[in-house]
Amino acid sequence: MQNNRLKQQIEFIIEIDKLKQVFRQSILMDGTRRENDAEHSWHLAIMGILLGEYSQEDLDLWRVVKMLLIHDIVEIDAGDTYCYEGTPYADKLEREKKAADRLFNILPPDQKEDFQRLWEEFEKRSTPEARFAAALDRLQPLLHNYKTKGESWKKHGVTSDQVIERNKSILEASKTLWDFAETIINDSIKKGYLPV
Amino acid sequence: MQNNRLKQQIEFIIEIDKLKQVFRQSILMDGTRRENDAEHSWHLAIMGILLGEYSQEDLDLWRVVKMLLIHDIVEIDAGDTYCYEGTPYADKLEREKKAADRLFNILPPDQKEDFQRLWEEFEKRSTPEARFAAALDRLQPLLHNYKTKGESWKKHGVTSDQVIERNKSILEASKTLWDFAETIINDSIKKGYLPV
Repeated sequence: MQNNRLKQQIEFIIEIDKLKQVFRQSILMDGTRRENDAEHSWHLAIMGILLGEYSQEDLDLWRVVKMLLIHDIVEIDAGDTYCYEGTPYADKLEREKKAADRLFNILPPDQKEDFQRLWEEFEKRSTPEARFAAALDRLQPLLHNYKTKGESWKKHGVTSDQVIERNKSILEASKTLWDFAETIINDSIKKGYLPV
Repeated sequence: MQNNRLKQQIEFIIEIDKLKQVFRQSILMDGTRRENDAEHSWHLAIMGILLGEYSQEDLDLWRVVKMLLIHDIVEIDAGDTYCYEGTPYADKLEREKKAADRLFNILPPDQKEDFQRLWEEFEKRSTPEARFAAALDRLQPLLHNYKTKGESWKKHGVTSDQVIERNKSILEASKTLWDFAETIINDSIKKGYLPV
């Protein structure tokens, strides 16, 4: 290939095929298997398109969707870290920074910088776009747990206090979506999907 | 839930989880299993972000990415139709239209119309955005076949004439990407991944 820029872009596109094999703790809503990061990112992107109107702050939805599409790419190297784990969660940022360095570096410099910036913004929740994207990243697994009668919560002995603590940041982005999340959590407690 | 609009949006978000279980003929680049439509759509969306600069026509990349994210949702009802099949391919549009009617109708009317329009545009390749999105939808499986030494081509007895016929529409969107596709096809023939 004569075009070095295109060569780098294609190399990245080939590399990220691996995200389809990084499995999360979330179970598909039909209960058959764990969800992978690639399909999770797709699902979040659609949620961004549909639910953007509930953001309390003005936002650029195109940036939200880009952020959601790339936010888990670092897990190709760093692996998925279950949000209710203790110790492995502590060095999560370190592992993911290293992964971002290697992976985004495959890209041409301008696109590397763009992806790196979007990813850091998402991690820090430093903009309206990042806060909204992070809220969706919490809401989606909640829906999966609800539809599978709390399967992954039960497997890991997660309690309602932990779920509320983890998800309350949804309120930073959207009162409407937090109210909805609370309804789901309360109904999960009532139905025995989630121990108090 | 008191908010009927949000209820419809959440119902759609739950419904489309099924796209993660619609499997294509493409094999993941590591050769282990077939790719599903959700992860395929995610991969295409990232390709859109990275390769948009090679479009011959001015385009709105945000619309391209939205189109790529939703273009296969109809396959929840219509199933994946292998592009090198004969008869099943003939009634593809009819089946997919029916699927679009049912699925997009779950959404609030404005979002239903938006998704319906984007999907029709993609199918007809009637705009620069649609032509570019369709080009990526051809290029991506080509890369998967190349990286798996033509596994799905071999399985279905696909020849180079068929692959060229199927993929030459990439040229409608981008000379650069078509040149790249041709390089991949020629190298696949040379390496015995694809019979002449």
